[in-house]
Amino acid sequence: MINEAMLTLGKEPSSIRELFAYGLERKAQIGEENVFDFSLGNPNVPAPDAVSAAIRDLSEMPPSSIHGYTPAQGAPSVRTAIADSLNRRFGTDYTMNNLYLTCGAAASLNICLKALVVPGDEVMVISPFFPEYRVWIEGNGAKLVMVPARESDFQIDVPAVAQAITERTKAVIINSPNNPVGVVYTRETLEQLADALRAADHPIYLMSDEPYRELVYGGKEVPWVPAIYENTIVCYSWSKSLSMPGERIGFLLVPDTVSQANDVYAAICGAGRALGFVCAPALFQKVIERCVDEPTDIAAYESNRTMLTEIMDEAGLEYIEPEGAFYLWVKSPEPDANAFAERAKKHELLLVPSDSFGVTGWVRLGYCVSQQVISGSREAIIALAAEYK
Amino acid sequence: MINEAMLTLGKEPSSIRELFAYGLERKAQIGEENVFDFSLGNPNVPAPDAVSAAIRDLSEMPPSSIHGYTPAQGAPSVRTAIADSLNRRFGTDYTMNNLYLTCGAAASLNICLKALVVPGDEVMVISPFFPEYRVWIEGNGAKLVMVPARESDFQIDVPAVAQAITERTKAVIINSPNNPVGVVYTRETLEQLADALRAADHPIYLMSDEPYRELVYGGKEVPWVPAIYENTIVCYSWSKSLSMPGERIGFLLVPDTVSQANDVYAAICGAGRALGFVCAPALFQKVIERCVDEPTDIAAYESNRTMLTEIMDEAGLEYIEPEGAFYLWVKSPEPDANAFAERAKKHELLLVPSDSFGVTGWVRLGYCVSQQVISGSREAIIALAAEYK
Repeated sequence: MINEAMLTLGKEPSSIRELFAYGLERKAQIGEENVFDFSLGNPNVPAPDAVSAAIRDLSEMPPSSIHGYTPAQGAPSVRTAIADSLNRRFGTDYTMNNLYLTCGAAASLNICLKALVVPGDEVMVISPFFPEYRVWIEGNGAKLVMVPARESDFQIDVPAVAQAITERTKAVIINSPNNPVGVVYTRETLEQLADALRAADHPIYLMSDEPYRELVYGGKEVPWVPAIYENTIVCYSWSKSLSMPGERIGFLLVPDTVSQANDVYAAICGAGRALGFVCAPALFQKVIERCVDEPTDIAAYESNRTMLTEIMDEAGLEYIEPEGAFYLWVKSPEPDANAFAERAKKHELLLVPSDSFGVTGWVRLGYCVSQQVISGSREAIIALAAEYK
Repeated sequence: MINEAMLTLGKEPSSIRELFAYGLERKAQIGEENVFDFSLGNPNVPAPDAVSAAIRDLSEMPPSSIHGYTPAQGAPSVRTAIADSLNRRFGTDYTMNNLYLTCGAAASLNICLKALVVPGDEVMVISPFFPEYRVWIEGNGAKLVMVPARESDFQIDVPAVAQAITERTKAVIINSPNNPVGVVYTRETLEQLADALRAADHPIYLMSDEPYRELVYGGKEVPWVPAIYENTIVCYSWSKSLSMPGERIGFLLVPDTVSQANDVYAAICGAGRALGFVCAPALFQKVIERCVDEPTDIAAYESNRTMLTEIMDEAGLEYIEPEGAFYLWVKSPEPDANAFAERAKKHELLLVPSDSFGVTGWVRLGYCVSQQVISGSREAIIALAAEYK
């Protein structure tokens, strides 16, 4: 009677959210300090003081000037501030007309897909990949085409991408710094990818999903993708960089160099309207205008990364050293990552099995958690690993 | 190449938004005080002090407790506060499990439609109706079936609704207090509608779109629709009642009495996920928790209504006396409302022609504007009407 596809989606929540819900229940049973919950990507570093200060300032202003509708694309002054900031950082010359503000990265990605694809199109993703990509790609009637990352270093396997291109390939989604692996795509990788995409006999859009752009360690370069491949649309969110994932604020950037740029931008406006977004939250648009150059505090994540990788070394578990984002990708000591994650639960360790990311045999640990969770998890991780010795 | 339907939607913005954009341009040319802009439903009454105070208070709290992800359905404490408030007002016994928080009424409506309909279904609307209904109904693959309101008083023409029901009728959308006409559906109308829907040989959902519930004049009763028809889903938004349309916060209420209530709620969760909403803006969820019983300030709208209807009387223009909301529905003195609205523009009057609301021969004036706009418009309205004498 009702829409079965939506019912299925609603009844089978993402494995990440499911594990998170289990964790909440378990914490209520045995105490928060006894559950080592690495399930979510909910930043534990608080939003910077500048965000709270901006909110306080704005709350003193005439409410009608703050809480009213903005244009669907976002307030002009906010879009201009973002364009100026990008131009300062990347030597570009964007204007507000290249920017469309969204309710976060999920909205950015789904709006962009809805604007671009028609049923039967193919959209390529690099596995392992963020599981909701599948929901949005297939929800818009396109086919998800999965290309595994290079096994040695989890960079993009460009020859495999080139081979997977067909006449129906509409777009490729990349995510760097990467969730779940933590890899940052090198300039060389991106240049090779650009060449492969340009070699196709029709324009292929590159959707660069960048919520972790500012979260990198040791000054690692995160190349500005539109400067490498002209047909790039940037899908951004401040959820992680300013630690406010609940506020739903991000953007789509359509550079003038994009194929049919004006039409793509117009179709994005149409898709936002069709999906029911109306405008990005108005107060947080204005918070962004004031905080667009606020630095991201990565010190806590960096120290968490060190602590957690040292524990893994001690436990003898294999992992990929993250260059960015706040996830540790750990090899399951048995082929079935679900079985490993179930066994981990007995040690009160909540790890996300890799299957929903499109690969088998790994688990993801989100280390955007307190130091107590990490130090507390040490014995559990060592005991878990010992079961496989 | 890209999605043509989205391109068309994006290139042909709603006539309301288009007129609003024209108004901004015109104000820049000849001064804000010389343009009488009745195009939008952007409340001019500021958000209550309690909203600003709540925002200020929340900005003093630990940011992680405020700006993090909430469950997709909304924070439990917020949903409980809303359920409690509804229960106090309407003698119901809802719990947080009946509520799903949304990014405003547009999201509420589109999520609900996506959860309910399958391609080929029919969704009924009462004309004149809010133009975006068409975008969301057709965008979800359903057919919009338009039933004109009763000519005498713009109440629902229930016999016409009954006659329009087919085996594919999945839902009926009603909007009371009504945009654009300002009518409030009586208990009698709703009881007759309920009987007509119950007489169908399959369950028909009634989607009650209620952003104007609190905006009524003279203590007019706005009946609680789920108490009259068991198969009602309420689509709510605080955009108008708390004057914060830019903040995108509202809810869907699925009472237990709704046909397949658990599945409908699950499908709503699925639809929100598929559309990319993730969760309603977190700070404003918490603002609502604190302001859910805040009264709506309708005094300014009531005085605007009086001023504007007096001007119409003086000009000799026919209109429907609004019982609620903040729109005046005025009969065009020539059959073509677009021609009338164009002529109005020459007097710097921005009126929305009725065609996009599904009827011909009327214009809508949003009187959620300053008193200066209304008093300033007097001469222009009288001069415009005089052209038809």
